[in-house]
Amino acid sequence: MRLLKEFDREELMEIGRSLHSFAADLYPICRSITGEGLRQTLGMIGRRIALQISEVPTGTPVFDWTIPKEWNIRDAYIKDATGNRVVDFQRCNLHIVNYSAPVRAKMALHELRPRLFTIPEHPDWIPYRTSYYKEDWGFCLSHNQMLALKDAEYEVVIDSTLGDGHLTYAEHYVPGRSKDEVLISCHTCHPSLANDNLSGLVVATALAELLSGHDLCYSYRFLFIPGTIGAIAWLSRNHDAVEHICHGLVLTGLGDGRGFHYKKSRRGDAEIDRAMAQVLRHSGIAHALLEFSPYGYDERQYCSPGFNLPVGCLMRSVWGTFPEYHTSADNLDFIQPAQLAESLRTCTSVVDILENNHSYRNLNPYCEPQLGKRGLYRSGDGEAISEDIIARLWVLNLSDGGNSLLDIAERSGLKFSTINDAADLLCQSGLLSAVDDQGARIQRPGCISFE
Amino acid sequence: MRLLKEFDREELMEIGRSLHSFAADLYPICRSITGEGLRQTLGMIGRRIALQISEVPTGTPVFDWTIPKEWNIRDAYIKDATGNRVVDFQRCNLHIVNYSAPVRAKMALHELRPRLFTIPEHPDWIPYRTSYYKEDWGFCLSHNQMLALKDAEYEVVIDSTLGDGHLTYAEHYVPGRSKDEVLISCHTCHPSLANDNLSGLVVATALAELLSGHDLCYSYRFLFIPGTIGAIAWLSRNHDAVEHICHGLVLTGLGDGRGFHYKKSRRGDAEIDRAMAQVLRHSGIAHALLEFSPYGYDERQYCSPGFNLPVGCLMRSVWGTFPEYHTSADNLDFIQPAQLAESLRTCTSVVDILENNHSYRNLNPYCEPQLGKRGLYRSGDGEAISEDIIARLWVLNLSDGGNSLLDIAERSGLKFSTINDAADLLCQSGLLSAVDDQGARIQRPGCISFE
Amino acid sequence: MRLLKEFDREELMEIGRSLHSFAADLYPICRSITGEGLRQTLGMIGRRIALQISEVPTGTPVFDWTIPKEWNIRDAYIKDATGNRVVDFQRCNLHIVNYSAPVRAKMALHELRPRLFTIPEHPDWIPYRTSYYKEDWGFCLSHNQMLALKDAEYEVVIDSTLGDGHLTYAEHYVPGRSKDEVLISCHTCHPSLANDNLSGLVVATALAELLSGHDLCYSYRFLFIPGTIGAIAWLSRNHDAVEHICHGLVLTGLGDGRGFHYKKSRRGDAEIDRAMAQVLRHSGIAHALLEFSPYGYDERQYCSPGFNLPVGCLMRSVWGTFPEYHTSADNLDFIQPAQLAESLRTCTSVVDILENNHSYRNLNPYCEPQLGKRGLYRSGDGEAISEDIIARLWVLNLSDGGNSLLDIAERSGLKFSTINDAADLLCQSGLLSAVDDQGARIQRPGCISFE
Repeated sequence: MRLLKEFDREELMEIGRSLHSFAADLYPICRSITGEGLRQTLGMIGRRIALQISEVPTGTPVFDWTIPKEWNIRDAYIKDATGNRVVDFQRCNLHIVNYSAPVRAKMALHELRPRLFTIPEHPDWIPYRTSYYKEDWGFCLSHNQMLALKDAEYEVVIDSTLGDGHLTYAEHYVPGRSKDEVLISCHTCHPSLANDNLSGLVVATALAELLSGHDLCYSYRFLFIPGTIGAIAWLSRNHDAVEHICHGLVLTGLGDGRGFHYKKSRRGDAEIDRAMAQVLRHSGIAHALLEFSPYGYDERQYCSPGFNLPVGCLMRSVWGTFPEYHTSADNLDFIQPAQLAESLRTCTSVVDILENNHSYRNLNPYCEPQLGKRGLYRSGDGEAISEDIIARLWVLNLSDGGNSLLDIAERSGLKFSTINDAADLLCQSGLLSAVDDQGARIQRPGCISFE
Repeated sequence: MRLLKEFDREELMEIGRSLHSFAADLYPICRSITGEGLRQTLGMIGRRIALQISEVPTGTPVFDWTIPKEWNIRDAYIKDATGNRVVDFQRCNLHIVNYSAPVRAKMALHELRPRLFTIPEHPDWIPYRTSYYKEDWGFCLSHNQMLALKDAEYEVVIDSTLGDGHLTYAEHYVPGRSKDEVLISCHTCHPSLANDNLSGLVVATALAELLSGHDLCYSYRFLFIPGTIGAIAWLSRNHDAVEHICHGLVLTGLGDGRGFHYKKSRRGDAEIDRAMAQVLRHSGIAHALLEFSPYGYDERQYCSPGFNLPVGCLMRSVWGTFPEYHTSADNLDFIQPAQLAESLRTCTSVVDILENNHSYRNLNPYCEPQLGKRGLYRSGDGEAISEDIIARLWVLNLSDGGNSLLDIAERSGLKFSTINDAADLLCQSGLLSAVDDQGARIQRPGCISFE
Repeated sequence: MRLLKEFDREELMEIGRSLHSFAADLYPICRSITGEGLRQTLGMIGRRIALQISEVPTGTPVFDWTIPKEWNIRDAYIKDATGNRVVDFQRCNLHIVNYSAPVRAKMALHELRPRLFTIPEHPDWIPYRTSYYKEDWGFCLSHNQMLALKDAEYEVVIDSTLGDGHLTYAEHYVPGRSKDEVLISCHTCHPSLANDNLSGLVVATALAELLSGHDLCYSYRFLFIPGTIGAIAWLSRNHDAVEHICHGLVLTGLGDGRGFHYKKSRRGDAEIDRAMAQVLRHSGIAHALLEFSPYGYDERQYCSPGFNLPVGCLMRSVWGTFPEYHTSADNLDFIQPAQLAESLRTCTSVVDILENNHSYRNLNPYCEPQLGKRGLYRSGDGEAISEDIIARLWVLNLSDGGNSLLDIAERSGLKFSTINDAADLLCQSGLLSAVDDQGARIQRPGCISFE
């Protein structure tokens, strides 16, 4: 199974434009961890890939947490004495502290002031703030906007509702030959922020589309969930699925212009960690591998000690380390088609490794087989030994049943796809056979059972 | 159990002055590996902490060695024709080769010359020399002193005794909840040398005083012993105690102005080695970790293959690497109060780790517990995630029963005390429980039994 | 057992001159993977060391390969219209593509041109080419020679035979106290090339001569074989011997002026790998350790997965990385006596380690034994502690039965011979005893059995 292998630069640009265009469609929606914006977003994804939608009622206990009230918002503004909306939710949904309780009041600027949030260092940017678990309200605005406010009385309206309802999340399942699963998870709760995380959402959707129709070794489960509470809700309600997860990725921040950052799973040496390191090492793109830490995105939940799932997190810029993070500057200009496409290709390359990382046995283990008589060696003494031939020698030498192709790629320093091609050719020549010819990986990396 | 935690800079200086003052009291005594100077020294320590004194008779076999004759000295000098003492033991006890046999003779300079030892590179310093196991005699003097000697006849007197007696050592035992022991060992055999090893002696005494009255997990055994033969004698006579040693430190050279050197135990990765590395890493003080080697102080005996005890050696300057080593320049000016206090604090920090290095179990291992509802998270979305919160997340994430707090400190890169505070708070919140709630470590690190 | 230990610089130069002289004798012979040149070469080796010659008939299957036809050549040339030999095998046997089929033809330059091989970058050098497994013919010549050829008709003669015959290889066996074997292998198939591999051949021969008459722990087997097919033939016909191989070296390229390169066995941490690393580390000669790769010399066969023998490859310059490689510039000037002797000494130092790498037990494991009373310590307090004494302390400290002398050399950073001398002295003093006093290593490093 090879994904995207055939795509050239122009096709990738086309894919990138399509990813960006989908992000642009989703951008204006006011999402949150519950509510209609989230449902509308999932509806638009559902028009591309089949989704199974779950609705978890307010008040449902999910491990140590409880599903909160559902939040919806129609309008919100701060109006001055002349009736002018000086802060207007209709212009940008970041203007409201996400999950703000309803308010209708007249108040002087000095009363309102503690509920106004700005970024003095970036006076034109609107910050993104939330208050999910503590009922509160407030407005976010640019620092310049606030400086322009006169010391007068304002009409303050937040036309929102907070009441019993549901938390919504969606799953897309791609069945493979094995019930063993690869989990792809992205958070879908952020409103008009492009990199965090429309980028992850559109890349995940496109990856699901690309997998469709392939004869897959693993099954793939895509989760489109609100951050933290969504992952916790899903984990608490899907014990069976959890036990099948062999590899997983959280996708986020995949559209900006910086190099890749891959945060390893808690295990640190899981196959997904090694596969991602392999892809990035040969990508030609600047990148860094980050050790696991218990702060970040939903890998926090997947890698909690009771689960300890082999789930890493692929990002470009790391949360909190770039100025645009959680501000209105994380907009559609901040994510670029080529970068989204490159992120997608990184994901497909990892899938290619997971799908093909089998172990083989050299059927002529005593001395080298004579490659020349099979047309697998150089044709003449004067020719250089190509990397392809070296790859064949590595595969033959290390295929004693104990090394997977990824092991061989790592030890040889050659690219996984070169090693994989060599293995294919040697199988065709009858020199190699798969250790496990059911085509599926038998050994799963020790998923922990629920107690 | 936290030691010294509450002490501020001024209190530490006060402690340092007290340590230096005690060293000054002990400085003039002519100690050796046996004899009255050693007894007098132990008597002065015994006025601060309760000591159990042992006297081992001359001739007693201790493993491959034999307790030597007891050495005592009243006076010694070289007198010129005018009756002037040109070398005088009363002025400095280093003037005598330690363990010199008695002599009364008149001899010409050229006869005396082979028995005079100087340091030409440091013409004002007196070297320190011994001849414990080969009966001999000699004088040490400054090179300038020797150059001033005229080619004449001298009266040479060493009024010493070498006869049947005892080797004396002392122990101070601080009982803890467990019989498992931490060994603190320092050599007390050097005469007027301050860093080597009054510094180790006064720091050990102060550590013993500080431990007094604390509810301790481990029991602590302090050894005040003559170097080599003392350690060998103690080991040969204390099989039962040896089997309880879980961690140990040799303390020496702790007063000079250089950074710390910690020489690891023979095991190299014992808990004491990791605890010391952790303390030094976060100390802000220049330091180096040295691999074990079989040459040095009494760790040579504790780490001999039959024992292989997890005992390291904490020093500032390393023996033999600084010019003042084993000379009269290793005097009370060479050791400073602030440096002694810092050494003591390093020891107490290590004790804090050993005492608190328990393993815990996260009682909500599936996903993160909701810290916010317990007041353990940041109060608002705008606040930064403090190091204290990160520490809580690390403790929760890694507390699966298999990681101790030191493991967590090492993996997180956070200071042990920060991790320890987080564990305390999480226990109070009911989110964590100690794996071993008897308060004592059950597993000891494989102390070797006598055959 | 110590080899060469007593030889000084002048003796080594003498040895080097002797090695070079033997290479010079062998240089003119036209060797190949079969044929009379190979037999003649083995005959000349056999006048120095006893050889067992094997002849494997053409057509014999050896694993995946088949013994090819035997090749012999009497003469070959390209003659111009005036009867002048413009390319003449009698002047240099590299002029013929090795294994060229017989030819007698008249042809125009443009017809001949595709069968002429040169090195444009080095216009005076003749390349070395072969065509063992594809019946073909051709000439190698200097680029300047070719440029001088006029566009005329030439008489082309290769007076060779390709027919049923034998592949010849030779073994020299030095019996030791154990049947466990050390394999020394060198390829003997290259014609007039000095470094590749007359150098390996003469060093191996000299090593065999040096071993003669020694009381050896291991048995030693020297293989003088044609590359690839020779190693494969030997392995396929010597299952019993293979099972006794505990350590092995391929020797090649040992005469040039560059530093040493040691390519590790597939295992990477075999005793031979560690012994060679130890020798090179203390050699004072520039060197590099190379990780195993499945391309190179006959270690490819010994390290194929079915065998996985602990066989490394000692070289100076690495194949293919120096311009003289496989050209007429790899001549007798390219290899120097001093370099050949140094290579031999490197081999004997490795043998010294293998022969002496026993494990000992400290008979006084509790505390240090008193070295002073045995005259094994410094004589006075003022003397420095010599490296010899430090070595004794290391041997005593680590000789708990679990560490070999090589382990101790590695951990201490001291030279193996210093550690070995210390062990000898401590044994003589009754402080140490060999764990295995049968003088032979009992545990072999897991040689794989034939299935």
